[in-house]
Amino acid sequence: MARINNHIVIMAGGVGSRFWPMSTSERPKQFIDVLGTGKTLLQLTVERFGTLVEPENIWVVTNARYADIVAEQLPSIPKENILCEPCRRNTAPCIAYVSWRIKKKDPKANIVVTPSDHIVMDVEEFRRVIKSCMNYTGESDAIVTLGMKPTRPETGYGYIQANLGASSLSNKNIYRVDSFREKPDLETAMEYIQQNNYYWNAGIFIWNVNTIVNAFRVYQPRMAKIFEQMLPVYGTPEEQAIVNEKFPTCENISVDYAIMEKAEEIFVCPADFGWSDLGTWGSLLTQSKRDLYGNAAIGTDVQLVECHDTIVHTTQEKKVVVQGLDGYIVAEHDDTLLICKLSEEQRIKQFSGEN
Amino acid sequence: MARINNHIVIMAGGVGSRFWPMSTSERPKQFIDVLGTGKTLLQLTVERFGTLVEPENIWVVTNARYADIVAEQLPSIPKENILCEPCRRNTAPCIAYVSWRIKKKDPKANIVVTPSDHIVMDVEEFRRVIKSCMNYTGESDAIVTLGMKPTRPETGYGYIQANLGASSLSNKNIYRVDSFREKPDLETAMEYIQQNNYYWNAGIFIWNVNTIVNAFRVYQPRMAKIFEQMLPVYGTPEEQAIVNEKFPTCENISVDYAIMEKAEEIFVCPADFGWSDLGTWGSLLTQSKRDLYGNAAIGTDVQLVECHDTIVHTTQEKKVVVQGLDGYIVAEHDDTLLICKLSEEQRIKQFSGEN
Repeated sequence: MARINNHIVIMAGGVGSRFWPMSTSERPKQFIDVLGTGKTLLQLTVERFGTLVEPENIWVVTNARYADIVAEQLPSIPKENILCEPCRRNTAPCIAYVSWRIKKKDPKANIVVTPSDHIVMDVEEFRRVIKSCMNYTGESDAIVTLGMKPTRPETGYGYIQANLGASSLSNKNIYRVDSFREKPDLETAMEYIQQNNYYWNAGIFIWNVNTIVNAFRVYQPRMAKIFEQMLPVYGTPEEQAIVNEKFPTCENISVDYAIMEKAEEIFVCPADFGWSDLGTWGSLLTQSKRDLYGNAAIGTDVQLVECHDTIVHTTQEKKVVVQGLDGYIVAEHDDTLLICKLSEEQRIKQFSGEN
Repeated sequence: MARINNHIVIMAGGVGSRFWPMSTSERPKQFIDVLGTGKTLLQLTVERFGTLVEPENIWVVTNARYADIVAEQLPSIPKENILCEPCRRNTAPCIAYVSWRIKKKDPKANIVVTPSDHIVMDVEEFRRVIKSCMNYTGESDAIVTLGMKPTRPETGYGYIQANLGASSLSNKNIYRVDSFREKPDLETAMEYIQQNNYYWNAGIFIWNVNTIVNAFRVYQPRMAKIFEQMLPVYGTPEEQAIVNEKFPTCENISVDYAIMEKAEEIFVCPADFGWSDLGTWGSLLTQSKRDLYGNAAIGTDVQLVECHDTIVHTTQEKKVVVQGLDGYIVAEHDDTLLICKLSEEQRIKQFSGEN
């Protein structure tokens, strides 16, 4: 058997509009030092995999307008590994493109697909889980998703129902998926977490390249044909021009709808490494170091006086004094300042005037 | 009788710490476009006098560190008219210095002394009042103060008690002062405004140069001697060095204590031209154009959503969105952001970390 090479695919095309003004369409949140650690979420995403892959096997799929930012933030990966989507589509076309692209270079590739804007607290445990899943997909045709052990009845995530009685023969920690469930209402979410076999869908997938390419051929034959026909140009100077022409003809559909909910051999690996999709300011507050009063301050010189459950985020060398706020977001970025109740954060997109 | 020349003395040495972070010790509020009109308070102060004086008769007394800012903001006045205090003292030494300095140049000078950080709504009425007072002091030895008709029982101002039965013979609108009263408590302030002969002390004085110099000689002989002895160096290259040596030896005392409360021939001219000392964010809110919900926004791109009685001040080209604040100050300046309840604004000085 030929050597199996591990590849990472990082999806970095989102615009993160719920994190305005820190995140803007010019520089979405994956390209920002959201946590104040000195590293952007994209850089943290790559680091998280440690030595699991060589830099030449790290792929980033992003919008054409962000290619330079990616190259700047990840100088060690080859420029040709930054794949540019000419327009915003959902995850299925993105994954199809990179899968065929990798297949051309490395037909035995073993792949983990990950978003670029999530955070993981326990990186060692993350690596252990990913390694275990990659060992599994390196030797099987399984499609594996990670299922995050839920810690609260979150209504902002999709759930994966596992069949805990049907674990894989070769890996006792990987189970068959019974069903994917969309974001539930609170009552349903509470039922899910009581039942013990529901996990948050983190959008992290592990498979070998042939498995995913075949899944597209079976469940998305039209899309598969588009990327199959481009095989001759991948890795050539013509690639971008042809992709620019063909990519927009793909259906705007998520990989969950396009593949996961249709395929048979879907597995879930439950995991518990302190994960957040950092989808909202509230989730950042939850994941941040908080003071005695529940405040989180990300910035170099932030003074909170008589504040509670308030998150202050500034990425600049800015002095900030906030007095007397309870349950607010204060976010300052470049030439924009947002002050908003946490309870109203779903309206931020509208405040931003973007999109 | 020799021609009487009108002079303006602008006191511009304050640090405006209650208006932090808009106002900083590096650039206090008199040097800032507080109202968003495109002009700083100092520039508005000069403009307010219109053609009452020639530029060569406009004097600014400020701290040495602000001399360049004054010269930059008032390019039409002679550089030698910018007098530099080597250290912070109260108003008496400031006024003594400029009075002797003017006396040397123009022994018949007729002078109005004004702070640099107040605002006046009705500039025409202001000029009419000042002209009337200057006509009066040009021909008498009177010390005249302006008394602002109070519109509320303000506890942040000193009051002047007028003897409305004792108007001046030559100007029926100018009255003898019965007493100066310090900042009162609320009950006392309410009594004052019911009595109809109490006025806010605006710190604007009108007198001719001999009157004020003589008043210093009588009531502050030590201070008078200091500035009298420097007469030979005023207007020479040695002036600053000698002033730097002697000025710090002056008592740290206000002109109100040093002269006004002691002298006999003190008059008040009641005035009503929409005045504010802009001492606090609250007073700026009061003086600003407010929306239906009582908010005032000073800045180029400020959006207020579900806010009430909130003042937002940004002097930069900044986009600001504020949602759900009631009774707050939001002030952004250079690299500093302050969010604070209006009711807590007396603590701003402490938040600033300045002084």
